[in-house]
Amino acid sequence: MDRPTPPHSPRPDLPPNAPTAAELEAAAARIAPHAHRTPVLTSRTFDGWSGASLFFKCENLQRVGAFKFRGACNAVFALDEATAARGVATHSSGNHAQALALAAKLRGIAAHVVMPTDAPAAKRAAVEGYGARIVNCAPTLEAREATLAEVVAATGATEVHPYDDPRVVAGQATATLELLEEVPELDVVLAPVGGGGLISGACLAVAARGARAEVVGAEPALADDAAEGLRRGERLAPRPPKTIADGLRTALGPLSFGVLAHHGVRIETVDEETIAATTRLVWERMKIVVEPSAAVPVAVALRPGAFAGRRVGVLLSGGNLDLDRLPWHNAGAARSSTR
Amino acid sequence: MDRPTPPHSPRPDLPPNAPTAAELEAAAARIAPHAHRTPVLTSRTFDGWSGASLFFKCENLQRVGAFKFRGACNAVFALDEATAARGVATHSSGNHAQALALAAKLRGIAAHVVMPTDAPAAKRAAVEGYGARIVNCAPTLEAREATLAEVVAATGATEVHPYDDPRVVAGQATATLELLEEVPELDVVLAPVGGGGLISGACLAVAARGARAEVVGAEPALADDAAEGLRRGERLAPRPPKTIADGLRTALGPLSFGVLAHHGVRIETVDEETIAATTRLVWERMKIVVEPSAAVPVAVALRPGAFAGRRVGVLLSGGNLDLDRLPWHNAGAARSSTR
Repeated sequence: MDRPTPPHSPRPDLPPNAPTAAELEAAAARIAPHAHRTPVLTSRTFDGWSGASLFFKCENLQRVGAFKFRGACNAVFALDEATAARGVATHSSGNHAQALALAAKLRGIAAHVVMPTDAPAAKRAAVEGYGARIVNCAPTLEAREATLAEVVAATGATEVHPYDDPRVVAGQATATLELLEEVPELDVVLAPVGGGGLISGACLAVAARGARAEVVGAEPALADDAAEGLRRGERLAPRPPKTIADGLRTALGPLSFGVLAHHGVRIETVDEETIAATTRLVWERMKIVVEPSAAVPVAVALRPGAFAGRRVGVLLSGGNLDLDRLPWHNAGAARSSTR
Repeated sequence: MDRPTPPHSPRPDLPPNAPTAAELEAAAARIAPHAHRTPVLTSRTFDGWSGASLFFKCENLQRVGAFKFRGACNAVFALDEATAARGVATHSSGNHAQALALAAKLRGIAAHVVMPTDAPAAKRAAVEGYGARIVNCAPTLEAREATLAEVVAATGATEVHPYDDPRVVAGQATATLELLEEVPELDVVLAPVGGGGLISGACLAVAARGARAEVVGAEPALADDAAEGLRRGERLAPRPPKTIADGLRTALGPLSFGVLAHHGVRIETVDEETIAATTRLVWERMKIVVEPSAAVPVAVALRPGAFAGRRVGVLLSGGNLDLDRLPWHNAGAARSSTR
């Protein structure tokens, strides 16, 4: 429950490249023709357990099955014609790759996605299904970055980073803008923390709208670089990629770290067993499919008494996972592999 | 694709106990304070595959996880005070039992649910969780009916049948009333067929609102009593309970059979493998949890060319199932057990 900076120490300034309120509103208008305005669902059961009023923003129902489409779409459609014509590129094997592929397809430009040779076949197929070109590389971060640099040099494509990019953060912020419009007088916005695009967007959206909501982060205990880094006041490297919340294995980038530090955001951590059990609870009680990463803020919301009597918006980040490997069947394996 | 009655033969009259248009509208008003107005979702992927415009009425997001709450709620709240005070009763181990238990709890009256001793513990716990009294009986239909008669004699409770009851059918019809309000100019309403409460309600709702939509039924091939019975013009007994779409194992009742025969409803059948695969597709592409029974009309909607260019409402009946036994893992077992 520690705040990252004691009350007497001044908070750092916003990073100079943080998107402005006007850029957030422009992003909302830019993506409106392409992105879903996702529904906000409620659950009497979860309200009863938590004593809070919970409002779930269902980005699992977003196109591509994740909020990532918002940021990719804003980045792609913000490019001028000449730049866009040379295409976009990224290295990712997750939701961002699919999101960028779809956004590029909608604009009618090329997308180059650098993927390690050991990426799952299903993810490759999904990216190819949206018409992107996959460029293979060895399964190391160095190989990914070198290969991406080659692709950019050869094609003139614009790199769209999954979170360390103001256009992407402005796009992710639109989820919170919509939530604030749909649910007045929120006391809290709970967001998962991986690379930090969604939660830094939430901070900026709350500030842009002058809302009173406190933004609280939720992070796997096995990937607690943000909780620990914000406490220490320094950006940390990612933890070993062990958590079943695979969307949250990345560490904060400079932009997201700077936004969260400026806003003094508090981060709560969640253990693997609780992530798995909460994923199942959401499926069972809300009848929606969420990936483990999306269950992390739900687990925080359901902590007895933590938000009693408060109105809490919960950003459900996505719903992409392997339906043959249920998280609550694999959590034990994931846990034991970390010991 | 056969119509149940040839064009030259007159269709039978509506059963005299079929609820009227006014009773449907009264049901909508009666349950409004208690039931969710469930969202209508769309899927670009499914629209692309089918060539149709599909509108999914998400009764899996209804209270209790199924449309059954509508009928039970209308039946319970339609009782006069003196009758209600003596409670309600049913024999069911499925969604109707939970629905009746919750409706009775909301009205503050007793619910007696007769259940066979071999009913799954999870279902017993769910019914008890809503405060109903479970009365055990031997696992035969005779024992169920005899035990229910005893309960009714001893308590004066009103029996609420899961589908052969005009108040229940009027309640189920409200799902289609809402769908017609939400989506103008529907060409087709696709509904699953078990006991027939939901689909007979759909027929009556379309007629009550003067809508042009054709109501089409979807039934497991392993439980095709409605398809075959309507073709022959006689109500058939239920098939052996083999289909994984366990909500659709029951046969039509006199009321639902009469309504469907009067409206000349066409019923399409779906094999087990397709039901399982379609259940998975809905989870994977729409990110919502549906039970196999709800996937049956989706499978019909996705038949190539079947509804191309038409606007089709699909009633997703519910989302209750055992999350440790995925339908697409068990379909093979279910199939082989029928051979």
